[in-house]
Amino acid sequence: MDEFNFINILLTPLTRQHPETFALTDDAARLPPCPKGQEWLIASDTLIAGVHCFPDDAPQHIAAKLLAINLSDMAAMGATPHSYQLCLTLPRNVTAAWLEAFANGLGDTQLRYNIYLSGGDTTAHDGTLVASITMLGQCEKGACLQRSGAQPGDVIYVSGTLGDAALGLMLRKGQLPDLPETDRDYLLHRYLLPEPRIALGQQLRGIATSAMDISDGLLADLQHLCHASGVGADVQYNALPRSAAAHALETRYPEIWPKIWQQVFSAGDDYELLFTAPEDKLAEIKNFSQTLALPITRIGIATKSKHAPRLLDVSGSSISITKQGFMHL
Amino acid sequence: MDEFNFINILLTPLTRQHPETFALTDDAARLPPCPKGQEWLIASDTLIAGVHCFPDDAPQHIAAKLLAINLSDMAAMGATPHSYQLCLTLPRNVTAAWLEAFANGLGDTQLRYNIYLSGGDTTAHDGTLVASITMLGQCEKGACLQRSGAQPGDVIYVSGTLGDAALGLMLRKGQLPDLPETDRDYLLHRYLLPEPRIALGQQLRGIATSAMDISDGLLADLQHLCHASGVGADVQYNALPRSAAAHALETRYPEIWPKIWQQVFSAGDDYELLFTAPEDKLAEIKNFSQTLALPITRIGIATKSKHAPRLLDVSGSSISITKQGFMHL
Repeated sequence: MDEFNFINILLTPLTRQHPETFALTDDAARLPPCPKGQEWLIASDTLIAGVHCFPDDAPQHIAAKLLAINLSDMAAMGATPHSYQLCLTLPRNVTAAWLEAFANGLGDTQLRYNIYLSGGDTTAHDGTLVASITMLGQCEKGACLQRSGAQPGDVIYVSGTLGDAALGLMLRKGQLPDLPETDRDYLLHRYLLPEPRIALGQQLRGIATSAMDISDGLLADLQHLCHASGVGADVQYNALPRSAAAHALETRYPEIWPKIWQQVFSAGDDYELLFTAPEDKLAEIKNFSQTLALPITRIGIATKSKHAPRLLDVSGSSISITKQGFMHL
Repeated sequence: MDEFNFINILLTPLTRQHPETFALTDDAARLPPCPKGQEWLIASDTLIAGVHCFPDDAPQHIAAKLLAINLSDMAAMGATPHSYQLCLTLPRNVTAAWLEAFANGLGDTQLRYNIYLSGGDTTAHDGTLVASITMLGQCEKGACLQRSGAQPGDVIYVSGTLGDAALGLMLRKGQLPDLPETDRDYLLHRYLLPEPRIALGQQLRGIATSAMDISDGLLADLQHLCHASGVGADVQYNALPRSAAAHALETRYPEIWPKIWQQVFSAGDDYELLFTAPEDKLAEIKNFSQTLALPITRIGIATKSKHAPRLLDVSGSSISITKQGFMHL
């Protein structure tokens, strides 16, 4: 399958006949007017096979993860995703079957989030897949969530459970002992197919004082949020929400957990939302948690003292952390 | 230099303090409102070291080319470039000096075109540089140039001269004999630093019936334009505009030209504008050419018969072409 057939046969249907895309036959696409009272948000994320996924992952899963990590940026801003540009650099030996499955993965995820492909570029090189998406979203003017609004005394929350993606990755690498199939599948799935928290992000507008998604690891990302807000943070280790599968691992292999927990909580790829809100918003946040059937956990507090985020044990002592997050260079 | 220092020290200044970018500290950027009567255009292009440039090209030149090929898409639409997202996948062994020179190249080109960086992603892998830009531009509502409006009888024009980039690439690869330094430098420069025809694109709104930039080679790109417009095309070989340097090569080495001209005119990377206009727009187009000090050459005519673009010799016979353009897969 050559470049132009790939575009015409597999990518053009992903424009979902939006006339502004010119069916991918022109040099650019138009953006439709932003609805009154709304504004555009724009963000980009790259996925590399061998770094963010395995080259032999199912192509439809790679496509879904690529969209998910970009949708997660929109979730972090409280925006509604709209459309995207796709820059695909493919390995030269890519097969037609791979391309078809990849396009199917994009199509399935698009439908779930009501977005469409507006354009991009397709190239090939001697390496593994490098795929970048630029995602556009819309948000009520001036109402998007930012990292910079946390106030001392605000409560720090996270959605979902933390560390599952790290455990999923360790399982893939054969770094963990055997687990019951359900737990194993759950953790692998959490690594491969993160769930962008779009609905939560939208509900947090006007409630959260700051927000971001956790892509580089809890403490590293919290440090970015604290830096942007000019606050410090104290986080309770015992409060960090873990999935049943993570608990099962800890219980089954008590000798392993002490060796890996730092890596588990400081690895990235969770794509949960990290946010702050004043103490008096607790009832509303509990309500969101119930409505969305998504755990939201209070993990700590923003402090006036601008120290780097501290992880505290039950006695209130700071736990020393050796690795704070994933870094690309 | 680590990822966060690269962003903070070298990339953040490229936002030119536009508040909508949040100084690259957030999960997304806002787009400012589009001026009344205007609309947004969006396009993406990827540059790969080893495919679109040489890995050892000066980093500031690679940066300039990366922006230029994206600006060229805006030129092709008649749009005014506005801002861009940058997805950089760097070789793991990249040096601080390389990053600094690359950022300087972006900065210099930004200033020339009055654009700014609004966000993106920085990653690293085991391969060569893969850099994607998504460019946003603005254009009078509904007035952007498209590929689809050419009518039978319209004149086909190109800006600048054709084939220089192909010759520059052949020189780089040592595939051509020696040339006087001026000619050599000119051709190398045309390969390395294409000139997006922004001002011409803007002036062609309301004049050209179709337009695109030549990135994959004249005949391949003309075929796309013809397909989108539902016309055929006859192009006069003798009319194809060549630079003084290309002429010098042809004169100096008459035995070489017959062997390479097909490759010269069917290779990509010229980034000149290819457009059609009715016969009666000639005076206006001549005027643009003078004002912009940019040759604009009539190379052929759009035909009612929807045949693939034909290259005709002086006798009107079709010249057989074996290679029509650059393809990525």
